[in-house]
Amino acid sequence: MKLKTLVSALLIAAPYFVNAAQFTLTDAATNTDVGNWKITNSNLGINAPFSVEKIQLHGGKQTGVDTLVINNGELEITLIPTRGMGIFNVKRHGKRILGWDSPVKEIVNPAFIDLESRNGLGWLDGFNEMMVRCGYEWTGHPGVDENGQLLSLHGRAQNTPASTVVVTIDEQPPYTITVEGEISERTFKKAELVTHTSFSVTPGSNQFAIHDTLTNKADYDDEYQIIYHSNFGHPILEKGAKVTAAAKEISPFNNYAKKGLKTWQTYLGPTKGYDEMVFNLKPIGDKDGNTLAVLHNKASDTGVAVGYNIKQLPVLTLWKNTDTRQQGYVTGIEPGTSYAYNTKYQRPLGLVPTIKAGESKHFDVTYTVLRTSKEVKKALHQVAEIQGHKKVKQVSKPLVDLTKVH
Amino acid sequence: MKLKTLVSALLIAAPYFVNAAQFTLTDAATNTDVGNWKITNSNLGINAPFSVEKIQLHGGKQTGVDTLVINNGELEITLIPTRGMGIFNVKRHGKRILGWDSPVKEIVNPAFIDLESRNGLGWLDGFNEMMVRCGYEWTGHPGVDENGQLLSLHGRAQNTPASTVVVTIDEQPPYTITVEGEISERTFKKAELVTHTSFSVTPGSNQFAIHDTLTNKADYDDEYQIIYHSNFGHPILEKGAKVTAAAKEISPFNNYAKKGLKTWQTYLGPTKGYDEMVFNLKPIGDKDGNTLAVLHNKASDTGVAVGYNIKQLPVLTLWKNTDTRQQGYVTGIEPGTSYAYNTKYQRPLGLVPTIKAGESKHFDVTYTVLRTSKEVKKALHQVAEIQGHKKVKQVSKPLVDLTKVH
Amino acid sequence: MKLKTLVSALLIAAPYFVNAAQFTLTDAATNTDVGNWKITNSNLGINAPFSVEKIQLHGGKQTGVDTLVINNGELEITLIPTRGMGIFNVKRHGKRILGWDSPVKEIVNPAFIDLESRNGLGWLDGFNEMMVRCGYEWTGHPGVDENGQLLSLHGRAQNTPASTVVVTIDEQPPYTITVEGEISERTFKKAELVTHTSFSVTPGSNQFAIHDTLTNKADYDDEYQIIYHSNFGHPILEKGAKVTAAAKEISPFNNYAKKGLKTWQTYLGPTKGYDEMVFNLKPIGDKDGNTLAVLHNKASDTGVAVGYNIKQLPVLTLWKNTDTRQQGYVTGIEPGTSYAYNTKYQRPLGLVPTIKAGESKHFDVTYTVLRTSKEVKKALHQVAEIQGHKKVKQVSKPLVDLTKVH
Repeated sequence: MKLKTLVSALLIAAPYFVNAAQFTLTDAATNTDVGNWKITNSNLGINAPFSVEKIQLHGGKQTGVDTLVINNGELEITLIPTRGMGIFNVKRHGKRILGWDSPVKEIVNPAFIDLESRNGLGWLDGFNEMMVRCGYEWTGHPGVDENGQLLSLHGRAQNTPASTVVVTIDEQPPYTITVEGEISERTFKKAELVTHTSFSVTPGSNQFAIHDTLTNKADYDDEYQIIYHSNFGHPILEKGAKVTAAAKEISPFNNYAKKGLKTWQTYLGPTKGYDEMVFNLKPIGDKDGNTLAVLHNKASDTGVAVGYNIKQLPVLTLWKNTDTRQQGYVTGIEPGTSYAYNTKYQRPLGLVPTIKAGESKHFDVTYTVLRTSKEVKKALHQVAEIQGHKKVKQVSKPLVDLTKVH
Repeated sequence: MKLKTLVSALLIAAPYFVNAAQFTLTDAATNTDVGNWKITNSNLGINAPFSVEKIQLHGGKQTGVDTLVINNGELEITLIPTRGMGIFNVKRHGKRILGWDSPVKEIVNPAFIDLESRNGLGWLDGFNEMMVRCGYEWTGHPGVDENGQLLSLHGRAQNTPASTVVVTIDEQPPYTITVEGEISERTFKKAELVTHTSFSVTPGSNQFAIHDTLTNKADYDDEYQIIYHSNFGHPILEKGAKVTAAAKEISPFNNYAKKGLKTWQTYLGPTKGYDEMVFNLKPIGDKDGNTLAVLHNKASDTGVAVGYNIKQLPVLTLWKNTDTRQQGYVTGIEPGTSYAYNTKYQRPLGLVPTIKAGESKHFDVTYTVLRTSKEVKKALHQVAEIQGHKKVKQVSKPLVDLTKVH
Repeated sequence: MKLKTLVSALLIAAPYFVNAAQFTLTDAATNTDVGNWKITNSNLGINAPFSVEKIQLHGGKQTGVDTLVINNGELEITLIPTRGMGIFNVKRHGKRILGWDSPVKEIVNPAFIDLESRNGLGWLDGFNEMMVRCGYEWTGHPGVDENGQLLSLHGRAQNTPASTVVVTIDEQPPYTITVEGEISERTFKKAELVTHTSFSVTPGSNQFAIHDTLTNKADYDDEYQIIYHSNFGHPILEKGAKVTAAAKEISPFNNYAKKGLKTWQTYLGPTKGYDEMVFNLKPIGDKDGNTLAVLHNKASDTGVAVGYNIKQLPVLTLWKNTDTRQQGYVTGIEPGTSYAYNTKYQRPLGLVPTIKAGESKHFDVTYTVLRTSKEVKKALHQVAEIQGHKKVKQVSKPLVDLTKVH
């Protein structure tokens, strides 16, 4: 085991049998923060090129935000510890491949966000990431819950700074790079939901994964909800781009989306006045519950595959926001426990699960950058295998009649 | 062109034909912030004495606030990049000449302000500046708009940290000092209003100017509103101080102000129980739309002239808050697109203008410190020339009957 | 007088007759902050061992929070300047003796708290201290006041960063260590309540004290309220622990607490489903108004005495939150001007006092760590002396009928 001491970081000697170098960049419990920080493969005497860099942002509402840029030689992935360990974007060859152009340009410090503003739409002041954790106390559109409390859009996790950030690098092939972060949703008498997030990637790979563990630290059962709001714009999304998902059923989120139901798989170019159409899918998985959704461009040579497990994340929201570029031309592939309705409408649908006192729930999502026609084809083949001979049934009636609820 | 490299700042070589030194102090897009910073005329080999200094504040709710102090040899003007590029105050000979004594003593970091608190009055937690931009998504008193959204007092611009701060100093006489800052009001699906603010002053001058350009970066038309809330207390405001403005009409904001209509031009000393009287003026301008309002002390030897253009800012609010010193003895001369009513009451008045997709709107306001009887007299003469033989018609009925609206 | 210059701090030479070393650690008015800082008795040539250390926190929502750790050789007390000069906890021999284990683990920066969230329960996002100042604009449970304004739980003081922090060390025995901090509740037209907080302790002592002076800086009378929310968990609180307070009457806060009235003095162990029972006491004092409440463990050899004066703080709330450990097993001994009802319910009870324009109100609270059976016995004896032959009358009807109000 070769461990090189780094002056700028806390190096915790990992147990010998693990053969990994571990760096605690941030830890609230021990009042640790290393500040700006970087490690490369050569610092650890590893041959495969990679780097991990912690950079604090300045200017406007991004002041004080920590980012963590992981370059694995093939992809450059930017995580945002200050924003719930979200993924800002992914670059390849210096150009963004995953992510989108939001009207929100800065990576906004939650200190400047009031989630309950605009009747619970404050989350929109900071929304520009490729992957946002919408949860875990609640998710979905804002609205006053049955107990009289306003549930703000998509919960609080993404606007919660990580309490810990730990980088671990395996010193044996494939030299897996892991970034762990703890997101604490702790409010006296209200919630003790702690999510241990884990991001992992290996040098040279076109794939990375999220492995999250939500634990209810309270002595009482609690509700929880999560949507992995995964968002893609240019260069994958374009006129003629296509989404494919293994599913047994699709229905429009609301009446407005009805007219897009038949063409749910294809995308328009930037379209003024389109706003957004949202579809609720009931995904199907393989024998283990694993499933895949694939988005690719018109030429079918660039894309992304989102892998998840329907035992963990039983529903899929497809968000088609193909409005103009300035509005944010983007689509969301969003596996979750729940759809995007307000919590009170999802309870009757059985989509507001319970997490018992002390219980943990695991969520795994894998993102694969599809770089060639071959890779796109292979991913589509995987979807087809899961889908088998079943058809995606189109149901024109929304699961919730939003014209009647209030 | 003489450009001296400054270690502590990013010096961007300006094009040769401009002959200006430009310093980017803050830039969110490039993750730039120079920290505490200073430049003086001698750094640039310029003879006219001046300095520009960036100072970060500490203590209480002002922690992390950036200020920019511009001393042009005659005036010392403090800008607040962290608070929407507002102007905190202006000193002359070491004493405040423009500004006021608010009960709010610190220059409050927006991170500590919840604009929607107290039914939308959170803005009052930070209000103590000489010049506040009240806009641009909306302005005016708080209230629930027709769409059900609470519009908080005087909008969000002043509580938005500047995304960029750039100082430019012309290297040719008159060595104009320009401070540009970008204020982004960006909320997904709600607003893409970006204001390029510009402050300029020349060494030795008793005058400085604001040149703002609001751009609707969205692909959709939007409403906007702005009030340049310009506030003056001691030493200009005192018993017997007087305000003069070129106008065709004045009316009280509400029933309470009716009894002050006849004496609108003169000020009481600090008066317990006065609270505030607000008046709505319809200003008139010269052939180009330029107009002036002048406030001067009792002896008519100290004052301020506020110049603006009625094509840009067609209405003028006069805020007389001559309550006790501890309450904040102050008057506001507030050119704007709108009065201080809640937005929903101004739409029927035609005072909630539209900014088209991609369109820009310009706003110029000039402040002149009047240092002598002669300068006061000259400014009053300018007002009189614009006013001509017309009288300021006094209308006793408020534009909005606040006793009937709800 | 021996004054040693400290490089890392602003040393203000105290007047010779005072013989004290004074260090301004933070001062908004002069834009002072010394950063991390420490002083020990040997720095000042004093024989009695002590240290005072200012430490800024990192990680999660505690980023940017300043703490001040005072070790007097016997106790280690952590103050939180960024959170209203609250007391986080007190350790003895390296173990916590005063304080509790809240589900909220971090010392939360108010920048991340929205007090009005969850219908005014945002305060719960940061509640984990041994001593919280609940005031001063208002205190008590959240609710919409008669004027239509939401009063958030327990006011704003604890979520207000101190404007000044000054450490003074007497250079004569008993070498009293004093920490003063100013908490400003300043909102234009709404409040000018400034609290000069003072904490003092002497080296080697098992006792420390709070001496607060609230001043209404406004020219108008104002209401105010304060509860010194003093919270104790393990090791004092346990099954069989007991509270004793000199009082003439006790009544349940609400119907739920009725069934705990008879056993108000004793505590259950951690009890699932217990939630909280709250009791309203009318304390009695000695001839000067001084009174005492004592909490001790089952063995009566560890405890705390809370001393206060009923002329300053006429009522006492007893908060028994003996729910499970994860929920926060804790009891509050809370002298105040008011009980924990929403302000509008306390006005009719005469518990929303007025502070006149310019007036100051003093509040003194003393905490004594009881380390032995003897010290516990002595403290209980003091309570008994104040109580005399009077009985604590048990009144089963709550002061406010919360089933009828709305």
